[in-house]
Amino acid sequence: MSERDKTGRERGEEWWQTEIIEMAPGMIRLRGYEIQDLIGRVSFPATIWLMLRGELPSEDQAALLGIALGAAVDHGPQAPSIAIARMAATCGVGINSAMASAINVLGDVHGGAGEQALEFYGDIAVAMDGGDALEVAVSARLERFLNQEKGYVPGFGHRFHPVDPRAPRLLELTREFASRGVIGGRFADIAEALEAEIARRKGKRIPLNIDGATAVIYGELGFPPPLTRGLFVLSRSVGILAHAWEQTQQGGRNKGPLPREWLWAYTGTAPRPLPES
Amino acid sequence: MSERDKTGRERGEEWWQTEIIEMAPGMIRLRGYEIQDLIGRVSFPATIWLMLRGELPSEDQAALLGIALGAAVDHGPQAPSIAIARMAATCGVGINSAMASAINVLGDVHGGAGEQALEFYGDIAVAMDGGDALEVAVSARLERFLNQEKGYVPGFGHRFHPVDPRAPRLLELTREFASRGVIGGRFADIAEALEAEIARRKGKRIPLNIDGATAVIYGELGFPPPLTRGLFVLSRSVGILAHAWEQTQQGGRNKGPLPREWLWAYTGTAPRPLPES
Amino acid sequence: MSERDKTGRERGEEWWQTEIIEMAPGMIRLRGYEIQDLIGRVSFPATIWLMLRGELPSEDQAALLGIALGAAVDHGPQAPSIAIARMAATCGVGINSAMASAINVLGDVHGGAGEQALEFYGDIAVAMDGGDALEVAVSARLERFLNQEKGYVPGFGHRFHPVDPRAPRLLELTREFASRGVIGGRFADIAEALEAEIARRKGKRIPLNIDGATAVIYGELGFPPPLTRGLFVLSRSVGILAHAWEQTQQGGRNKGPLPREWLWAYTGTAPRPLPES
Amino acid sequence: MSERDKTGRERGEEWWQTEIIEMAPGMIRLRGYEIQDLIGRVSFPATIWLMLRGELPSEDQAALLGIALGAAVDHGPQAPSIAIARMAATCGVGINSAMASAINVLGDVHGGAGEQALEFYGDIAVAMDGGDALEVAVSARLERFLNQEKGYVPGFGHRFHPVDPRAPRLLELTREFASRGVIGGRFADIAEALEAEIARRKGKRIPLNIDGATAVIYGELGFPPPLTRGLFVLSRSVGILAHAWEQTQQGGRNKGPLPREWLWAYTGTAPRPLPES
Repeated sequence: MSERDKTGRERGEEWWQTEIIEMAPGMIRLRGYEIQDLIGRVSFPATIWLMLRGELPSEDQAALLGIALGAAVDHGPQAPSIAIARMAATCGVGINSAMASAINVLGDVHGGAGEQALEFYGDIAVAMDGGDALEVAVSARLERFLNQEKGYVPGFGHRFHPVDPRAPRLLELTREFASRGVIGGRFADIAEALEAEIARRKGKRIPLNIDGATAVIYGELGFPPPLTRGLFVLSRSVGILAHAWEQTQQGGRNKGPLPREWLWAYTGTAPRPLPES
Repeated sequence: MSERDKTGRERGEEWWQTEIIEMAPGMIRLRGYEIQDLIGRVSFPATIWLMLRGELPSEDQAALLGIALGAAVDHGPQAPSIAIARMAATCGVGINSAMASAINVLGDVHGGAGEQALEFYGDIAVAMDGGDALEVAVSARLERFLNQEKGYVPGFGHRFHPVDPRAPRLLELTREFASRGVIGGRFADIAEALEAEIARRKGKRIPLNIDGATAVIYGELGFPPPLTRGLFVLSRSVGILAHAWEQTQQGGRNKGPLPREWLWAYTGTAPRPLPES
Repeated sequence: MSERDKTGRERGEEWWQTEIIEMAPGMIRLRGYEIQDLIGRVSFPATIWLMLRGELPSEDQAALLGIALGAAVDHGPQAPSIAIARMAATCGVGINSAMASAINVLGDVHGGAGEQALEFYGDIAVAMDGGDALEVAVSARLERFLNQEKGYVPGFGHRFHPVDPRAPRLLELTREFASRGVIGGRFADIAEALEAEIARRKGKRIPLNIDGATAVIYGELGFPPPLTRGLFVLSRSVGILAHAWEQTQQGGRNKGPLPREWLWAYTGTAPRPLPES
Repeated sequence: MSERDKTGRERGEEWWQTEIIEMAPGMIRLRGYEIQDLIGRVSFPATIWLMLRGELPSEDQAALLGIALGAAVDHGPQAPSIAIARMAATCGVGINSAMASAINVLGDVHGGAGEQALEFYGDIAVAMDGGDALEVAVSARLERFLNQEKGYVPGFGHRFHPVDPRAPRLLELTREFASRGVIGGRFADIAEALEAEIARRKGKRIPLNIDGATAVIYGELGFPPPLTRGLFVLSRSVGILAHAWEQTQQGGRNKGPLPREWLWAYTGTAPRPLPES
């Protein structure tokens, strides 16, 4: 590369800037660490943390991250993401594409509750930083939600599970890590206070769900809300892959949502002739 | 931009080379034509042709392309592509993403039959170019298929329609365009001879389907086989959009494949305790 | 299917309801019309309209829809959608998947300006329905935008084209169709008044762009704003396909954004040894 | 649900069959284990194994799986997958959709080398099961490849790295796990014999790359070749997420592949007037 090329090439290369990875022929560094130093010495969850945060976590932090990632891997074929993975696997595309069609639908409704929950907790934490007591901050934020926003409080309630079996276990583990000083425990406090306040106001318990519980953990570990959705994608990708693979082995071609001998209900215009133009 | 930059910038720009579009501030040309000259004077199907082929079609050619594109827009919610579009539309993603998850599954099995059919016809056409009579070429290719390849002859038979109502109408129109000299009619001959030969060998009629019929038209118009799949994507995208939009209006959150109060059949390992590690 | 099956099957089939398509073995109806009646008698843009709206358009309406669809097919490889289609085409996936990765990014920023523009026009139209004069309604809405919202007025200005060559031509055609009574012309009035008011307030002309111009047409034709994005997807899919196909023919494996012999600028942490755990 | 519903519902539910997950209100079991038993006691890589294989791995097996997953998380913005993730992140779509567009391109060329490598190794292993010595089996398979197949031997050579720094480290760890009896070491033997034989025949060393090295590990652990690609997707998703997130923080709208002030090289037809129709 001659000097005359330099400026143009430099401009091209600076268009793609990253703090994540450095490369030269025969060399790969992630966040400043040689890849061959990382391999075999840093666990997979710790590598995820390093890539997203820029620094290595403690072993305990990595363990807690791994716990949250493992908890949400699957919710069965009635979840649109899982059903899509299985249907796609029968359409003649690679397993990567079956996964992509599925991951793509982990949007605001299907994958965004954790992000919304952590934002909600964060608003309360900010009020507490400003001097509010936990209960006051929780009550005020919930009040605002019930008055101005709509739908479900993010992170609470489940249309299928009266109590989501993942949530209490995750909260229990969060408390355990907090007791050992790995995390502070503030988001666990907020989530529990929220659950109590929702019960008080609604007159019935609407328990913390998986999204609310993983949001607690991700928040405790210092992840910003949008990464909560990204981490959920990493987690659910495991179930998406498992189901795409199982469907591949079951076979089938162009699997539809209902048994092949069924159709759908047509509710439109009755048969009619094409008008003479 | 100084002269010193030139070489690097030129190298960057030549990395992205295209014969399709030329631009400068205030100017857009497609295949050499000013965009403002095209707009309002060239139909949408003709624009599709120009973009893919590099030259403008005749009005008749564009009309026949439009006919094939219009014929395959939808096959209902039991098609994985349509079901996926509708499910995705309830997951909190944009309509573009609902469409993408659906289009993505128009793979070898769900979207590739037209491409395979046109390749099959093309093999026969090559044999005819080499001097074989139509019936000889058809019989030889079919013989090879039945002996060495497997599954269905691409473009023939339908798991739902005894006769696909789109195919005979498309073939009728193809004959009409051929009679006016717009196209040659050779691929229509090949498809009909194939249908007859399959019937003779199998002892029952396995009629031409939509993929086989559109492949005839795309072949007559000179499109190479891989574009047949691309054109099918353009066509089916219309139904995908219509269903995504209808589902958006129907509402629903995280629509699964089966009624919400149903589950799926679990056929795996019985409940078991986690082993002591 | 016995009577005992009926209730469960009916419940299954009603889970998937549509007014778009009706099917039985050998029969396909779109919006009440037999598919074989539509094929060859209804143009591709008219079929798009029928699928999305439920009724057939007039020939003029279909023509105007086709004009808007044809205008936005491509904006070259510096548009992320087009670049993604070309890169994907070198990665060993089907043309449908290359298209899907590209279409998927036609989101709020890349594909949403038309939708936002039509919503903006619609707010003004509502004020006019309430009795406001055009200029008053335009000025009030723009005032609100400049005070409370941020960024660019949707549908105006272009980072590359001082004047987007597609917009004036589309507006000219809109006027022509309005003069023949095909459409009312109100959205064209609104867009022109907006352009004038923006110029007055900003002291420089920020002209209507392709998104603003197609939003005028889609609004005139009665499409709701979210479909504006869907129609843009149908339109841009043509360019996406053309570029994916051209790249396939050019060849290449795992095409990156920059020339192969270049890298990117690494701006992160300096090399460091892995800490002793 | 009455008895009359039963048959239809049962048919619906059996259409979606899985051995992976069992659910009832308040209960989730993965492969027979209660989710609350798994959470906190089974690592993330072990959960991935359980989901894909149906049984829990040993701690050592899970550790080796985690090593392979961690090794391939990123290869920088010149990889199409990473570039696409970053571009998508500027287009106004959710982080899940930015990830999906990227994951989607991990196809036969970009993501399939590991799968192909493991199939290649497997052919050699089968010959060894039939009685061939390692060197004989390797030589015969390579002979066949060089004579009948084309391109690169899958898993060997790298267009950028003279020696891929990940591969020797992964092989060293594989040997270490084999020496402790966690795995057999046969695929490591095959890969090393292949490398030697390629060098002998080509007269230059074409070293094992990341795909070839992870294929060794996945093969040693008993994963079938198609899952090798699925595991690569899980691994690379980490880098895809990290880059999408970094780009989100850097900002930008509709990021193209080249610096904004550049274009592309147009190599098509010269400007021409639209023909009079």
